Amino acid sequence: MNKLHLFLALLFCISIQSQNIQSPSKEISLNFKLSTDGKPTYSVTFKEKNIVKESSLGLVLKETKSLENGFSIVNQETKFVDESWNPVLGEQAVIENKYNLITFYLLQKETNRKLNIVFKVYNEGVAFRYEFPNQENLNYFIVSDEKSQFNLTANHKVFWLPGDYDSQEYPYSETKISEINTDNIDRNNGISLKTINNKFRVQSPLMMKSDDGIYINIFEAAVVNYPVMHLDVSPSEYKFVSSLVPNAIGDKAYLQTPSVSPWRTIMISDDARDIVSSKMILNLNEPCKLDDTSFIKPMKYVGIWWEMHVGKSTWDYAGSQNAQNAAGKQIPTGRHGATTENTKRYIDFASKNGFDGVLVEGWNTGWEDWFGNWKEDVFDFTTPYPDFDLKEVNSYAKSKGIKMIMHHETSGSVANYERHLDRALNLMKEYGYPAAKSGYVGKIIPRGEYHDGQTMVNHFNFVARRFADYKLMLNSHESSRPTGYSRTYPNYIAAEAARGNEFNAWSIGNPPMHETILPFTRLLGGPMDYTPGIFETKMNFYDSKKTEQVHTTLTKQLALYVTMYSPLQMAADLVENYEKYMDAFQFIKDVAIDWQESKYLEAEPGDYLTIARKEKNGERWFLGAITDENARVSEIKLDFLSTNKKYKAIIYQDGKDADWQNNPKSYTIKTQIVTSKTKLKLNLAKGGGTAISFVPM
Amino acid sequence: MNKLHLFLALLFCISIQSQNIQSPSKEISLNFKLSTDGKPTYSVTFKEKNIVKESSLGLVLKETKSLENGFSIVNQETKFVDESWNPVLGEQAVIENKYNLITFYLLQKETNRKLNIVFKVYNEGVAFRYEFPNQENLNYFIVSDEKSQFNLTANHKVFWLPGDYDSQEYPYSETKISEINTDNIDRNNGISLKTINNKFRVQSPLMMKSDDGIYINIFEAAVVNYPVMHLDVSPSEYKFVSSLVPNAIGDKAYLQTPSVSPWRTIMISDDARDIVSSKMILNLNEPCKLDDTSFIKPMKYVGIWWEMHVGKSTWDYAGSQNAQNAAGKQIPTGRHGATTENTKRYIDFASKNGFDGVLVEGWNTGWEDWFGNWKEDVFDFTTPYPDFDLKEVNSYAKSKGIKMIMHHETSGSVANYERHLDRALNLMKEYGYPAAKSGYVGKIIPRGEYHDGQTMVNHFNFVARRFADYKLMLNSHESSRPTGYSRTYPNYIAAEAARGNEFNAWSIGNPPMHETILPFTRLLGGPMDYTPGIFETKMNFYDSKKTEQVHTTLTKQLALYVTMYSPLQMAADLVENYEKYMDAFQFIKDVAIDWQESKYLEAEPGDYLTIARKEKNGERWFLGAITDENARVSEIKLDFLSTNKKYKAIIYQDGKDADWQNNPKSYTIKTQIVTSKTKLKLNLAKGGGTAISFVPM
Repeated sequence: MNKLHLFLALLFCISIQSQNIQSPSKEISLNFKLSTDGKPTYSVTFKEKNIVKESSLGLVLKETKSLENGFSIVNQETKFVDESWNPVLGEQAVIENKYNLITFYLLQKETNRKLNIVFKVYNEGVAFRYEFPNQENLNYFIVSDEKSQFNLTANHKVFWLPGDYDSQEYPYSETKISEINTDNIDRNNGISLKTINNKFRVQSPLMMKSDDGIYINIFEAAVVNYPVMHLDVSPSEYKFVSSLVPNAIGDKAYLQTPSVSPWRTIMISDDARDIVSSKMILNLNEPCKLDDTSFIKPMKYVGIWWEMHVGKSTWDYAGSQNAQNAAGKQIPTGRHGATTENTKRYIDFASKNGFDGVLVEGWNTGWEDWFGNWKEDVFDFTTPYPDFDLKEVNSYAKSKGIKMIMHHETSGSVANYERHLDRALNLMKEYGYPAAKSGYVGKIIPRGEYHDGQTMVNHFNFVARRFADYKLMLNSHESSRPTGYSRTYPNYIAAEAARGNEFNAWSIGNPPMHETILPFTRLLGGPMDYTPGIFETKMNFYDSKKTEQVHTTLTKQLALYVTMYSPLQMAADLVENYEKYMDAFQFIKDVAIDWQESKYLEAEPGDYLTIARKEKNGERWFLGAITDENARVSEIKLDFLSTNKKYKAIIYQDGKDADWQNNPKSYTIKTQIVTSKTKLKLNLAKGGGTAISFVPM
Repeated sequence: MNKLHLFLALLFCISIQSQNIQSPSKEISLNFKLSTDGKPTYSVTFKEKNIVKESSLGLVLKETKSLENGFSIVNQETKFVDESWNPVLGEQAVIENKYNLITFYLLQKETNRKLNIVFKVYNEGVAFRYEFPNQENLNYFIVSDEKSQFNLTANHKVFWLPGDYDSQEYPYSETKISEINTDNIDRNNGISLKTINNKFRVQSPLMMKSDDGIYINIFEAAVVNYPVMHLDVSPSEYKFVSSLVPNAIGDKAYLQTPSVSPWRTIMISDDARDIVSSKMILNLNEPCKLDDTSFIKPMKYVGIWWEMHVGKSTWDYAGSQNAQNAAGKQIPTGRHGATTENTKRYIDFASKNGFDGVLVEGWNTGWEDWFGNWKEDVFDFTTPYPDFDLKEVNSYAKSKGIKMIMHHETSGSVANYERHLDRALNLMKEYGYPAAKSGYVGKIIPRGEYHDGQTMVNHFNFVARRFADYKLMLNSHESSRPTGYSRTYPNYIAAEAARGNEFNAWSIGNPPMHETILPFTRLLGGPMDYTPGIFETKMNFYDSKKTEQVHTTLTKQLALYVTMYSPLQMAADLVENYEKYMDAFQFIKDVAIDWQESKYLEAEPGDYLTIARKEKNGERWFLGAITDENARVSEIKLDFLSTNKKYKAIIYQDGKDADWQNNPKSYTIKTQIVTSKTKLKLNLAKGGGTAISFVPM
């Protein structure tokens, strides 16, 4: 090294600033530094093992210099936070929020622009975000790309979905990182709208496991006024980099200072239960912004819905479903599901069995030509079909103590929905609907937009806020997946935003492992309206030619009420099917849907999950245990139960000969007296599960 | 020719079908035929002169074979129509609609798809449209291009605007067809948003004059669920072809059969008055669809508006206009125009002078950061600034017999406007506003859309219909230019959609010829809210450093109330300016705004225009005469007046020393007794005009 080089090296050393920050437990350590050219980088260790190698951070802006390098650290601030809060509805009554925070105040000298990077280090992971403070040289700007790297250290096992701009309704692929390639997935999977542009792009949340047993999850929190982040992967290098979903003209995000990016999260643990039980995503969202949350109530419901999926009835009045040019020529065929009469039947059943609500899909005009043609003016959300009497249905429901759940299918024509939203919500108030399920099946209008772009993220959040204005609850289907916004607007009570149970009715379905991975991915962002409870799991029940089926046993369907958290839970099967199995149905009647506390007893992503939850405002506990395609035997300790109390355990378990494929309806129900000292042996069939009610004696 | 060739030629002859149809007057003749490859073509003659040479017709569709050739005629139908109708408001109480119609039913054999081409031949021109009938092989389709040719025969004089996707607010260029080149226009013209992609693209309506004195106008009517048609020109060949404005992803129109294209119109006459007085565009629209039109009333109004244009006050509360990050830091400077106090002053003036309404711009929050940044959530259309008391203002107006006119500036953020529209209109009903002026200054959101695309055309029409739902009137600014939709929804009472008077306040302005061409172009599609009546025409009146000025005399500003038809007419100047010239202002007080009949006495596009109109429900006549940059002397016969009646003519004319540039405020007012036999000599200064009230004695 000559003198000049030495001099330069010294100069660089001076400008290279490095800082460590640890989780409260000290197991996770984050290092942040600027590279020689002033590029922000970070790395993460867990129990002194490298988890994320040096990874750079930054953003590319449109028509102006990028925010990628040339930075210096002008200040930094640290803070330890240990607080707790009470969700309106949730898996637990109290959520702890404990982390170390560090903010790096960066200056890009050449442009005199400021950028802050904030890290929060939790016991179960690291989160970071970009902050764009109010400043003279940056006001409005357009994000062309975000370049947040996640450079992992080895070829982990990974559960991934292709980086589709419009859908997360895929089954998970379980491969090594090096094997990620979306060309290899089976595209005959029932998803009608697929927008995959890059075979090396996957979605977050991305659940991984290292060969040495460390669980890693990359996700994001508080996606507000920003597109969804997918991840571009360099498979052979185990590198991921953020890939934001574009809008119609290729821009990613329109921002104005002061503003912030969503949080990027990396959860890490050697105990999978730490990931699946984490409340980090909720914690990273803003606290509740509603003054009045009294209208937000959990709901267990049945509805006119599955009968359309299985082909018994149709959404549309004329039964022709997506008829061409059908307007004005609607002749009823008797197959319409959403009739006043059928609705009353569901109301009667709901009332008799202690349910809260009844959902009716297909009640309104538009279904006769709604799908697949990028049609703009489909539904008006206020005009019922002639055989659905809004007033009579709602009066009848009221007389039976039942609330009707509204349905707003938009068919992706969001512009049309927004135009009609106030009218739609006024109608709901007029008749007393407390909640609506919305749907977004189809290509988005405004044309060129994607389900996961900033425009649509803003739409979903706007709708939640507008519902809140009217004191209404929202359950969105085919929306972008939640990232904790339900903390801020808890009336956004649930979402689908993943491959739900419905795919089992008419596609290759959801493999038995599906429900064992969702809690490690989709559910981290908020409750999922998975619509469990299918008892007649084989579609040949309806049509002997059909081969489709639900990929679980009947008992696993029961267990899902515990393992698949949602304060809005459907008993999705037809009421006439439940009436044949009222002993098993008793669990669905009994199970709570809002919880005081939750215990994650066993967890392995893609394999199994066992959770026990205690009801809010009561002493009952409920347990759900599920397995994948493999049968499973397990012994669990009931030490979560109150000591000095005896409980009657009602155990719903797979029959000895049960398996999801050939004998799904084999189950047994037994009752046993237990205490906190009892150990229970669980026997789960292939694709099976166990559900238990613990009732204090 | 060998035998095979002879055989083929005969075959072709059989398939070549040709058909003529004439105007009721027989002066215009249309020929339609299929070319040898089954391409539809037409040509037009006027008094046996070729006006349009053989021009082909057709459309290119996305992802399917185009509708351009391979057609045969399977049927044709002709019809003579002679009817009349009564517009709710208009230039005349009765509109005649007389034409010969021919429909060609075409079949594209290869695809078994049907396409109809319909022609209507009026005395003043030809119109044609594409019809897409209900059929098995064409349901949903996307128009990628429309290829309607207009092949003219010579190098006519043409008045053109560049084919901008977002603005028609240009001054007209007057050149030969061969000289069309949008690179040559002065772009320092005050237009903030320009989207010109092709130097050989111009807008319609396109007004032309041949060397031998024939006037030709290409335009369109009934643009509904379709983009605006611009025209691509081959300057050396005098050929024009339709060029549809695209959406964000380059598509032009999304249609479903049965549907129709707008009408493409070619007006032809050797008397310019036949063009400027034509009601063909209105006639080609659907009849009124409103059951109740009683709420649609003409309005003469003043308002808080011009004072912002001249720099006396500001739209926003804090007076900082487009402040960066101003939210939450609004400190009033005393320059805000839309205060309760100032509004009352305008209400007093309006009431005292027999006006109907007062417009107030800048009354609502959002103006502090509204412009130029493609911001989405700008205005909510319901929240007033602290110094504007909605309730007090409206109560006061009511007590004075004045209606307030609402203002909805969207800043181009249409998605935001649609989200708030019902709320905005409910507010109007709550306070009794009968009408709103809307504005679209800025790049459109949904991003990637243009002011003239199908999405926006649909938006403007949707808003008009929504206003009708609430029995409200709409006056849109910066919208796409009207094509007669006000016949169908007459509550769409006026629009700007061209370069209005406002440009004179802060740009190179509108040259003196501007108002002599607009009636031949923009006004064919519907009333224009030009906002005439500026008395203090020089901006150095407000600020000695300013050089901008209105390019007319004061008297021409009066004449515009007659020559620039609108049932919604503003007296745009400040009330304190009118108070200095109450003798001249008397004409604005007197002039009618809804008419029994209109007589076009003299007309030459770009040079001069003289119109006399008789008020509806009264016996007064009003005359307006305007000229371009040249002074003009003219003698007019008053034979339009009732015979056997004497009238007091109050003549407002340019002073002898008047000219628009140096002495615009020189005027004289004289009174004269006239009859239908009187001839009046008009003396118009450079950029001048004459306005006359005829009051029966």
